Amino acid sequence: MELTVYLAGHVHGDWREVVKAASKDKGLPIQFVHPQTEHDLSDAIGENILGEQPNDFFRDDAASAINNLRTTVLMQKSDVVIALFGDKYKQWNTTMDATTAINLGKPLIIIRPKEHIHAMKELSNKANVTVETIDQAIEVLAYIYA
Amino acid sequence: MELTVYLAGHVHGDWREVVKAASKDKGLPIQFVHPQTEHDLSDAIGENILGEQPNDFFRDDAASAINNLRTTVLMQKSDVVIALFGDKYKQWNTTMDATTAINLGKPLIIIRPKEHIHAMKELSNKANVTVETIDQAIEVLAYIYA
Amino acid sequence: MELTVYLAGHVHGDWREVVKAASKDKGLPIQFVHPQTEHDLSDAIGENILGEQPNDFFRDDAASAINNLRTTVLMQKSDVVIALFGDKYKQWNTTMDATTAINLGKPLIIIRPKEHIHAMKELSNKANVTVETIDQAIEVLAYIYA
Amino acid sequence: MELTVYLAGHVHGDWREVVKAASKDKGLPIQFVHPQTEHDLSDAIGENILGEQPNDFFRDDAASAINNLRTTVLMQKSDVVIALFGDKYKQWNTTMDATTAINLGKPLIIIRPKEHIHAMKELSNKANVTVETIDQAIEVLAYIYA
Amino acid sequence: MELTVYLAGHVHGDWREVVKAASKDKGLPIQFVHPQTEHDLSDAIGENILGEQPNDFFRDDAASAINNLRTTVLMQKSDVVIALFGDKYKQWNTTMDATTAINLGKPLIIIRPKEHIHAMKELSNKANVTVETIDQAIEVLAYIYA
Amino acid sequence: MELTVYLAGHVHGDWREVVKAASKDKGLPIQFVHPQTEHDLSDAIGENILGEQPNDFFRDDAASAINNLRTTVLMQKSDVVIALFGDKYKQWNTTMDATTAINLGKPLIIIRPKEHIHAMKELSNKANVTVETIDQAIEVLAYIYA
Amino acid sequence: MELTVYLAGHVHGDWREVVKAASKDKGLPIQFVHPQTEHDLSDAIGENILGEQPNDFFRDDAASAINNLRTTVLMQKSDVVIALFGDKYKQWNTTMDATTAINLGKPLIIIRPKEHIHAMKELSNKANVTVETIDQAIEVLAYIYA
Amino acid sequence: MELTVYLAGHVHGDWREVVKAASKDKGLPIQFVHPQTEHDLSDAIGENILGEQPNDFFRDDAASAINNLRTTVLMQKSDVVIALFGDKYKQWNTTMDATTAINLGKPLIIIRPKEHIHAMKELSNKANVTVETIDQAIEVLAYIYA
Repeated sequence: MELTVYLAGHVHGDWREVVKAASKDKGLPIQFVHPQTEHDLSDAIGENILGEQPNDFFRDDAASAINNLRTTVLMQKSDVVIALFGDKYKQWNTTMDATTAINLGKPLIIIRPKEHIHAMKELSNKANVTVETIDQAIEVLAYIYA
Repeated sequence: MELTVYLAGHVHGDWREVVKAASKDKGLPIQFVHPQTEHDLSDAIGENILGEQPNDFFRDDAASAINNLRTTVLMQKSDVVIALFGDKYKQWNTTMDATTAINLGKPLIIIRPKEHIHAMKELSNKANVTVETIDQAIEVLAYIYA
Repeated sequence: MELTVYLAGHVHGDWREVVKAASKDKGLPIQFVHPQTEHDLSDAIGENILGEQPNDFFRDDAASAINNLRTTVLMQKSDVVIALFGDKYKQWNTTMDATTAINLGKPLIIIRPKEHIHAMKELSNKANVTVETIDQAIEVLAYIYA
Repeated sequence: MELTVYLAGHVHGDWREVVKAASKDKGLPIQFVHPQTEHDLSDAIGENILGEQPNDFFRDDAASAINNLRTTVLMQKSDVVIALFGDKYKQWNTTMDATTAINLGKPLIIIRPKEHIHAMKELSNKANVTVETIDQAIEVLAYIYA
Repeated sequence: MELTVYLAGHVHGDWREVVKAASKDKGLPIQFVHPQTEHDLSDAIGENILGEQPNDFFRDDAASAINNLRTTVLMQKSDVVIALFGDKYKQWNTTMDATTAINLGKPLIIIRPKEHIHAMKELSNKANVTVETIDQAIEVLAYIYA
Repeated sequence: MELTVYLAGHVHGDWREVVKAASKDKGLPIQFVHPQTEHDLSDAIGENILGEQPNDFFRDDAASAINNLRTTVLMQKSDVVIALFGDKYKQWNTTMDATTAINLGKPLIIIRPKEHIHAMKELSNKANVTVETIDQAIEVLAYIYA
Repeated sequence: MELTVYLAGHVHGDWREVVKAASKDKGLPIQFVHPQTEHDLSDAIGENILGEQPNDFFRDDAASAINNLRTTVLMQKSDVVIALFGDKYKQWNTTMDATTAINLGKPLIIIRPKEHIHAMKELSNKANVTVETIDQAIEVLAYIYA
Repeated sequence: MELTVYLAGHVHGDWREVVKAASKDKGLPIQFVHPQTEHDLSDAIGENILGEQPNDFFRDDAASAINNLRTTVLMQKSDVVIALFGDKYKQWNTTMDATTAINLGKPLIIIRPKEHIHAMKELSNKANVTVETIDQAIEVLAYIYA
């Protein structure tokens, strides 16, 4: 049984590659999808396609429309969602993706550092499972096939 | 990840072939579906199958029933909808298809000329992305795979 | 049993007052709601609330966002939708409202002039009832209570 | 037509009272509901009801369960959601409530300061309307009745 | 707790009045709604409103559209559906209403004579309760309040 | 694009084989599914599996439970439903299957003889297309691929 | 804001009266509904209405059909569900009602004794809140209004 | 037509292997999935992944979160659910899985011993089919392909 897993979270570092490698090591038949991870492209995609916008507000709005279309398509194709929260950034997109997973009935694994326990308590309570490391999340995925 | 994209819009010219060729050029794994594009067949299909009708009203009603069945099947199979509005025609079917995509949660790209900005503002506001050219719409599709 | 009926359609003339008066004459316990009917206010509401926008495109987008919020609230409160199509205008908002009613499972009555039979055939085929005059639409509403 | 409006957002200061007073001044027939605004009570409610927990993590989890039950009941009763983002705090609960409103089809007004335009661009793009002040949000509510 | 009960079934005799009287005798706070029971009006309503149609087929189609709008409004307002099958007639409308109740999750009571046990076995199996007399159906309604 | 089509209708004669052959002749990539067509097996399946029942009523109820499980699985797998009404039998199962298709949003083609126009008018009005012969139904299917 | 709360659980003792009294003491505007609590009536209702059945199996099946209709009506009217598990009985109906609440998105409070922690861990994990006493459940209800 | 069948029920003995072997013997193209059947692993999985918990309560809660994620993924992939109730254990998870199947519209076969007829009457009444042996359940599956 093949599964598609959506990897929500910030776009810094290579954490998604770590996830993919760990999944591959365990031989899990999982395809991973995710939001656009090239930060500059993600910010520029609106003007790249629609042309120059009047100011930064509209530049952002144009980019977000296209990013949202992309993530909507990909999340609708997914069976499980993993949302990684780091110790930096506002991470509102990650929160939005995680909440959408909950509302769509898609099983959700949250990865978050200890220092966010308090601030994320309500979101974490709605998730299926909350862990602290990528390895733990992979173990949860592996358990589906155990 | 293969996607099916429904191409709503008028049935004049060969714009759908342009879309397909552009998608193929970019190597996108996309299958395109669409309403019946042979206008005469679309208008005649009711009488072709059900026989002569009492007058033009019922001729139209018979054709529309069969066209609606066709488009319902195809839209339910689609992951994304593109709706092209030209500078002519009432384009109520295009509006109907676009609105149905919105209501079904299917991501929607609208292509419309500048002169329709005002008349289409509420519909455009509900779409995921509104662009002005076919090339821009293809770029949005390509971005899903970027 | 009180019903709420949403009156979709253009904002010219006083056709909604005609509907309300006719309903009152028949003693129907119906509350009517509808999109913003003051055209200038509808176009200006974005800048009225959000301040001046960079150009006409963004002026329209700001207004449409607020108009869409308003109509979404009101349509969700409705039991029946009447969509009136006149012989002028693009009437894309009317089409969008009518299609939304269909997709939400809200019973839909279309009023349209004879000259639009062909152009509206697919939309009309999906509506519950299509009539040509306001009086006929009122008779349909009255029949719910007959 | 009475409406119920859910006020998502941080629990510091008296901004919800400002909203209620402004709505009352305009004579809007609106009932407001919201998450628990007494911060200490919100944090302690788990142990208040369930007794002492093993540590802070479980104290938080107990409280969040009861807060989530409360907000779920209230949001399901609402017709519109307003989500206020300030210039401090992580505001993940506000994001979660806003996203839930989007996913439930409940019309959403976001209030956020200019400095968050970039960080909130995807969420803002999915909202119906985004404004910068409470007064603007009240004007949007008033427009429903205009 | 007031309930609305939809009475599906043929339009011959006064069985719905028997139901209403029995419910009133037991003091049940129930409002009853139902399809148009004046058979002639039900058949003529299409031409009454839309004018003369080309032939019997279109006369029937016009009437059915308006009858369907009416019953859709009323069933959406209902909490329980009772479907009475007699020993005559095709009763396809009754079957259609009963099946719609099942699919909408509205609790369904079927009343049918013994001679239809075999022919209705699959429909009956999907209903919540199947009884043989109106009195039994009223007892089921009364049990909700017991 | 392969489609699955559910063939609702009576189980007398070989009309489903006619449909399959006609579809094959046209080269349509369609898989057909349908209720149990061996009438005796359909009636006996309850006792075959569950053992002898107290009387005919319970024999029928046992069979219908298993038949309903079977058809529910198959209809959920289908993209289009064809419901054939002949000139005999009550055909309540056919009506139930047709109504379920309507309620599930699955496009529905009804085949019915002229003599049933009046009795089936409301059901026919809710179907996407109503035809009189199997050949016409096949032409509608072929049109999806035209 | 008035709420309706469904009280699932065994029908022994007077625990539901305790709940109602405690709610009244706190002045909560809550209406309580629940399954049939007269055990003998609950078991006999099938034969009471449908007449004598062939054996105990069919006596039970007849009763359960009517009990299920009753509870379905009442749960659909509810805003919150409380499920009390005692230290005796199989309590499968309580489990069924609790799970239905979860699946319908109705907020769920479970009351269960400590000795069932292990056996109920998966169900408890899906509930919004799990407590050990009726008083605690009432406190959760009161917190909705706090 | 391949089907996926979810096997809910206790994790003692090898009854799932019996089901799989019987299905294979009949040549049914069915893939079976199920909850974690290694009881010790199922109880320990929370601490295995999340580390030691404060006490048994939290050990159970951690395990149940991961078990629920697993079963949610698998049930969403299934076309039919079989729930086996034995003569021992509380079997609340089995009840929860069976009820979830009912609420999701997934056809449900219950296997239960005669001594549970009374205690399970309401759940059984909501299932599609209730049988007493595994062989009978397999016959029902085979009938889908008959």
